[in-house]
Amino acid sequence: MDSQSQPPRRQRVLSGLRPTGNVHIGHLAGALENWIELQKKFECYFFIADWHALTTHYADTKNLQNDIRENVKDYLAAGLDPEQAVLFLQSRVPEHAELHLLLSLITPLGWLERVPTYKEQREQIRDKDLGTYGFLGYPVLQSADILMYKADYVPVGEDQVAHIELTREICRRFNSFYGSVFPEPQAMLTSAARLPGTDGRKMSKSYGNAIYLGDPEAAIREKVSNMLTDPARKRRSDPGNPDICPVFAYHKLFSPAATVEMVNVECRRAGIGCVEDKKLMTANLVQALAPIQERRRQYENRPQDVWNVLEEGSHKAKQTAEATMEQVRAGMNLKPGGTEKKTAE
Amino acid sequence: MDSQSQPPRRQRVLSGLRPTGNVHIGHLAGALENWIELQKKFECYFFIADWHALTTHYADTKNLQNDIRENVKDYLAAGLDPEQAVLFLQSRVPEHAELHLLLSLITPLGWLERVPTYKEQREQIRDKDLGTYGFLGYPVLQSADILMYKADYVPVGEDQVAHIELTREICRRFNSFYGSVFPEPQAMLTSAARLPGTDGRKMSKSYGNAIYLGDPEAAIREKVSNMLTDPARKRRSDPGNPDICPVFAYHKLFSPAATVEMVNVECRRAGIGCVEDKKLMTANLVQALAPIQERRRQYENRPQDVWNVLEEGSHKAKQTAEATMEQVRAGMNLKPGGTEKKTAE
Repeated sequence: MDSQSQPPRRQRVLSGLRPTGNVHIGHLAGALENWIELQKKFECYFFIADWHALTTHYADTKNLQNDIRENVKDYLAAGLDPEQAVLFLQSRVPEHAELHLLLSLITPLGWLERVPTYKEQREQIRDKDLGTYGFLGYPVLQSADILMYKADYVPVGEDQVAHIELTREICRRFNSFYGSVFPEPQAMLTSAARLPGTDGRKMSKSYGNAIYLGDPEAAIREKVSNMLTDPARKRRSDPGNPDICPVFAYHKLFSPAATVEMVNVECRRAGIGCVEDKKLMTANLVQALAPIQERRRQYENRPQDVWNVLEEGSHKAKQTAEATMEQVRAGMNLKPGGTEKKTAE
Repeated sequence: MDSQSQPPRRQRVLSGLRPTGNVHIGHLAGALENWIELQKKFECYFFIADWHALTTHYADTKNLQNDIRENVKDYLAAGLDPEQAVLFLQSRVPEHAELHLLLSLITPLGWLERVPTYKEQREQIRDKDLGTYGFLGYPVLQSADILMYKADYVPVGEDQVAHIELTREICRRFNSFYGSVFPEPQAMLTSAARLPGTDGRKMSKSYGNAIYLGDPEAAIREKVSNMLTDPARKRRSDPGNPDICPVFAYHKLFSPAATVEMVNVECRRAGIGCVEDKKLMTANLVQALAPIQERRRQYENRPQDVWNVLEEGSHKAKQTAEATMEQVRAGMNLKPGGTEKKTAE
């Protein structure tokens, strides 16, 4: 409209997370803190990928709305700011399904069958039947999510780079058939270290080794007190190895630099014991979570606000999506009336 | 709402045709006359399957809007009545894409790979690359089309019965996961004889053997005069066999019963020659097409009316589709807020 008076468009970031119920500190250290940094520098579209969740969890959806609500509470509590970033719910922008269908028409089956995570997940996830048409096509849905917002960057871990590459291939194929509608998105590698669970394995709800953003202080104390440390350190007088100790991984995220350095030195010469070390870390972890938990309590008392944030974000996202779809439909000659309308009116 | 005062719902029929450009008399004798009969007895949803057309014709869409417009003109001219039946454009009801996505989540790949027409078409259609995700999934889109309107019946030829069976399987699987949302649709076998082209092969634009609803009388005369008849009848004095003569197939559709009977007898005893026979048939064909062509001319002069019919039909279809999707989303627990909303408000 008056593009001359507008500043140049900020570069755009798109990122989605499946609804997982309560958010744990592994999510915070991974995607969430990254999102909170990104929203300051980029035009961000963050979404709760409820349709993606159904690609694997279609057989039991009873917790879905609860999971979405708890996720949003945690995101907002952690500092995601709906004034800075657009936070929306995938299924509230049904344009994603339309673009998914249209991209499916030009996506060779072989590209999908060769996605590394496809066979991997079908082999690893044994308790669900993933031999569905929708599971094979979920990288197409992901491509639709990304291209819909003409995202410049998509923050991903190493294991997701192949998906972005597939999106770029679909993007090029679309543009070659129907004109340059989409820019090619780029993977933005996130360097965030993966925070281990309290037992040293990957932190996961299903392993029962997670500390949640909403955990009360007593629960955190209890969980940390049962944490594994360096298994070779059997007595207080044995020196320990912080590099393999989950408690130290937490220190690095939640304790001041001076404390991290002190523990790094003292543990190795048995200058600090595991019990004392855990107490020190717990205090810092509790302190880091305190403001998050305070904000979370505010949302607990007004659950409708949570849905309103999602509704408003989804409304904004829908406007961007609809503008893109108009270009997609025009490019594919799917606009009713085509050229005749112009001459007839 | 006030269901007590409403008559019981008429049984519902759903049928779609791909946009093909000009409609020929083979279409008329096949699907179209059937539609015109069905609209009197059933609540009919008929649609132009533009997205389906793209499952095979994605690489070149430049004629799509022209094809849609010409089709609608022919349908209306042939007697399809938008006051009796809902005539809509698939892509104008994007709910179809949403239901397609949701059904894809529960559709086993094996069901699609085993659809008889799938391998057949991939082998037969050599000039297009049909090894796409979308082509594999087009029976899922077809299922979404049918289930969206809770159709009781779907008129199909023998070759499409397997698709309706697949739709029924997807329907049962959906209902078993998410509650009884969809009735099981039934195939309604159409007995319409397939009208041969002027060369005796299947009538098809690509064979150049079609007579179009809009063909002027001179063109029809020309095409009929070149028609093949019984190849064994070499001279006027040879008796002919109407059973293998395309001209006789046209007689059966367009000539009065007395004429059909006369030709059936006289041809076999060389009482009528091919030239005379063709003239007789042409006169009846031209007469049958005359009112259709008159109505078609009216639409030629007001092209915007054609789009308005589609827009109004698509608006009606969208209302039915949206009501179904509300039930689908509720069944799958995809309605934002879920149960909490109720208690919070």
